[in-house]
Amino acid sequence: MNIDLNSDLGESLGVWRMGDDAAMLSLVSSANVACGFHAGDPAGILRTLRQAKARGVAVGAHVAYRDLVGFGRRNMDVDSADLRADVIYQIGALKGLAAAAGTTVRYVKPHGALYNTIAHDERQARDVIAAIRETDPGLCLVALAGSPLLGWARGEGLRAVAEAFADRAYTPQGTLVSRRVPGAVLHDADQVAERMLRLATDGVVTAIDGSTVRIEAESVCVHGDSPGAVEMARQVRARLEQAGVTIQPFVDAA
Amino acid sequence: MNIDLNSDLGESLGVWRMGDDAAMLSLVSSANVACGFHAGDPAGILRTLRQAKARGVAVGAHVAYRDLVGFGRRNMDVDSADLRADVIYQIGALKGLAAAAGTTVRYVKPHGALYNTIAHDERQARDVIAAIRETDPGLCLVALAGSPLLGWARGEGLRAVAEAFADRAYTPQGTLVSRRVPGAVLHDADQVAERMLRLATDGVVTAIDGSTVRIEAESVCVHGDSPGAVEMARQVRARLEQAGVTIQPFVDAA
Amino acid sequence: MNIDLNSDLGESLGVWRMGDDAAMLSLVSSANVACGFHAGDPAGILRTLRQAKARGVAVGAHVAYRDLVGFGRRNMDVDSADLRADVIYQIGALKGLAAAAGTTVRYVKPHGALYNTIAHDERQARDVIAAIRETDPGLCLVALAGSPLLGWARGEGLRAVAEAFADRAYTPQGTLVSRRVPGAVLHDADQVAERMLRLATDGVVTAIDGSTVRIEAESVCVHGDSPGAVEMARQVRARLEQAGVTIQPFVDAA
Amino acid sequence: MNIDLNSDLGESLGVWRMGDDAAMLSLVSSANVACGFHAGDPAGILRTLRQAKARGVAVGAHVAYRDLVGFGRRNMDVDSADLRADVIYQIGALKGLAAAAGTTVRYVKPHGALYNTIAHDERQARDVIAAIRETDPGLCLVALAGSPLLGWARGEGLRAVAEAFADRAYTPQGTLVSRRVPGAVLHDADQVAERMLRLATDGVVTAIDGSTVRIEAESVCVHGDSPGAVEMARQVRARLEQAGVTIQPFVDAA
Repeated sequence: MNIDLNSDLGESLGVWRMGDDAAMLSLVSSANVACGFHAGDPAGILRTLRQAKARGVAVGAHVAYRDLVGFGRRNMDVDSADLRADVIYQIGALKGLAAAAGTTVRYVKPHGALYNTIAHDERQARDVIAAIRETDPGLCLVALAGSPLLGWARGEGLRAVAEAFADRAYTPQGTLVSRRVPGAVLHDADQVAERMLRLATDGVVTAIDGSTVRIEAESVCVHGDSPGAVEMARQVRARLEQAGVTIQPFVDAA
Repeated sequence: MNIDLNSDLGESLGVWRMGDDAAMLSLVSSANVACGFHAGDPAGILRTLRQAKARGVAVGAHVAYRDLVGFGRRNMDVDSADLRADVIYQIGALKGLAAAAGTTVRYVKPHGALYNTIAHDERQARDVIAAIRETDPGLCLVALAGSPLLGWARGEGLRAVAEAFADRAYTPQGTLVSRRVPGAVLHDADQVAERMLRLATDGVVTAIDGSTVRIEAESVCVHGDSPGAVEMARQVRARLEQAGVTIQPFVDAA
Repeated sequence: MNIDLNSDLGESLGVWRMGDDAAMLSLVSSANVACGFHAGDPAGILRTLRQAKARGVAVGAHVAYRDLVGFGRRNMDVDSADLRADVIYQIGALKGLAAAAGTTVRYVKPHGALYNTIAHDERQARDVIAAIRETDPGLCLVALAGSPLLGWARGEGLRAVAEAFADRAYTPQGTLVSRRVPGAVLHDADQVAERMLRLATDGVVTAIDGSTVRIEAESVCVHGDSPGAVEMARQVRARLEQAGVTIQPFVDAA
Repeated sequence: MNIDLNSDLGESLGVWRMGDDAAMLSLVSSANVACGFHAGDPAGILRTLRQAKARGVAVGAHVAYRDLVGFGRRNMDVDSADLRADVIYQIGALKGLAAAAGTTVRYVKPHGALYNTIAHDERQARDVIAAIRETDPGLCLVALAGSPLLGWARGEGLRAVAEAFADRAYTPQGTLVSRRVPGAVLHDADQVAERMLRLATDGVVTAIDGSTVRIEAESVCVHGDSPGAVEMARQVRARLEQAGVTIQPFVDAA
């Protein structure tokens, strides 16, 4: 039994630090690396890529809307010509830096508002899919478990990898509980670790109403943007390994 | 006999237009395409790359300091870690877009202040050379004819291509006359065309003092940022072709 | 009888030119000057402000979403804390440059997507209104004729100035015909000039269905981003003046 | 006896935090607030200004080169038209936000590379001086103690305030020891506090060679970008107050 753990990395910007990339790279099997549009400057990205290479962690392009001040979390009405080219540009830039670090970009995971939008918005989803295909059809796309995006991507010939979120509650329908609902974000590391073990072994989690819901996920997203988040990721990994689940990327690391 | 004509293209930015890329792509054999740091947005760059592909024009990465407002013309004291990563990032981004356009980045030509600085500043020169080698050692470097940069690049195993400027006066030593000196920039298209023909056929130009000076150049830079500049480029090309000189890239176009 | 003509100016960016500010400043009575978020660099903005001062043209802050590449035309889901502060920052920056040019910012006219959004979106509208009041409650707000924004602004104590668009068709209800509808944008300068004369003298225009519709507007927006646009503005001004309508700002120019 | 303590604040950017503004605002009498060119987004700047207002801390504009990724620490060859307008723009933007926070910008302190450059480069110095005079000649200019900038500014009618650095070693000539020299930066908070007490009371510090050197300074810069830096500032303030020195701004706070 095995599962992938992924985390958002390379999100520092010049003098501004974010997260503890070195710590997270010892815990996860896949690194979603910022590409400069929502976060990340080239020198910082390159440092993260070199650490990922050294740790044998697989690298993905964490593409985003062009919005540094908003950290890519604000919805933007980007037209198809721009969105396609913006995604291609970011993947290409990360591929260049990855080559310099001796590693390879293996997948694309959109970030923030773009991630949420293309899970359901077919126009923007098809723009991102087209951008990936035009740049490198061998790249996987990491997408929200249960979202229509998975089908759209597979229909276009991409390998689409479903992802669950370690610290988020699920509805009985298998969708994420909105952050506005109390209980949407889980803070108990033990509980989160147990949930992810059950997800990895049985393919189910307990929904917010107590029912059991099936979540098809090849990868689990853990956060590393605070000391508490790093500790939660550590516990998730430890619980999985203790139970005999292998943490490994869904693709070869390089 | 043959020579390459290159021009700076892809320098529009969103709604702001610059130059007539379509016209220039019918005249030159190599396109130095902006990479987003001094000019160029991804969608506009992609359009230019598709036109270059359609025309069989070779593509180079026109890398620059990160300075949109100053158009990359202002000297910046960028440290090695940043400069290397910035150059890698830009080459990578252009490679991604070139792949989507069905073409390939074949060379790197630094832009503006970076071009001038690395012609003589060994620290920054070696950073740019290292960046190219780490990204793709098969890329050529286009550099100022007669500059030490050519030797530094060749010493590191890169193919370095010397470049002359069609509309600039030269000193008896074969260096560019400073723009501050009267007569530094030539405006007569006929005269420019004759000079470039002599450069292509005999390897010499008439220096500003009337002497004849040898310029080793495999490529000639022509501008396209005004109707007059496009017309001058047209005359240079016509004069060369009329005299039997073939206009062709110094590398395969793709 | 009098009316204000306004136009969007100061929209060049570094080396990239947009519009003919000098020509437009001889035609309009109010200049909506870019503040650096969708267009305009400080040195270019300052040049435009000096020209406006010399011409006796009133100055307004053309505030926008922070989106240079998209020219502020893309909807962005900006939260209240950011939107308020972004608007204050832009008005303040323009006030500083206006002081240096010997003139004064007298009004605010939001640009592009922000203009369209706050015409109807009460949350963002109230953010912009609050930003203006916190910076300088003596500033007017220019808003789409017939929009609820006018009432919201007046309810908060601002002077709100209704604006019509010279080159746009209107519905029988007095709203703008969507740009997606054929005939939404008018190209005949004579026709446009006649329409604006009727608007200035009788307060009505002919709607797209041929009916007559009342438009309460103290100001008319004319464009200057192409030679044809400048010529249309010239005809509008000439027709108005010939009929005895005085072109003057809705506030003192400085 | 009294002296001013100043610190660089408002340097967070969107999600990226820098420094502990609340802690520093309880220690210093003057806040050099970022203006968005090297750091600071409008909403974050506004929060800092509101805290400064609540604490009675005087506000200055921490103007910089336009270089977010390099945090304004990289020398840039900015021409006079751009430098003047950039400084005016930043002061104006901060004035707008200050008005919204109920406070007032009282001085200008350039940041980073601009600070160091104009201490000695007369062309850029005169550009900054002109920018301040054109925006608001009542603003003071904070400048390096002993630098020619002080005289240039005073010669143009500005009040120029000399500044010492709490944690920096001085040469026997009263200039800063270069950061490349061992011992240039002081880390012992006790020692720094004693030095600043002596500076405030006797106008002298012990130079790096053991000699005593006179430093004319009305203000002392303390850092707040790390917990250690905040603690050092706390000790400097405590030592000064214990010895009867009043910490107060060199101007009225608002």
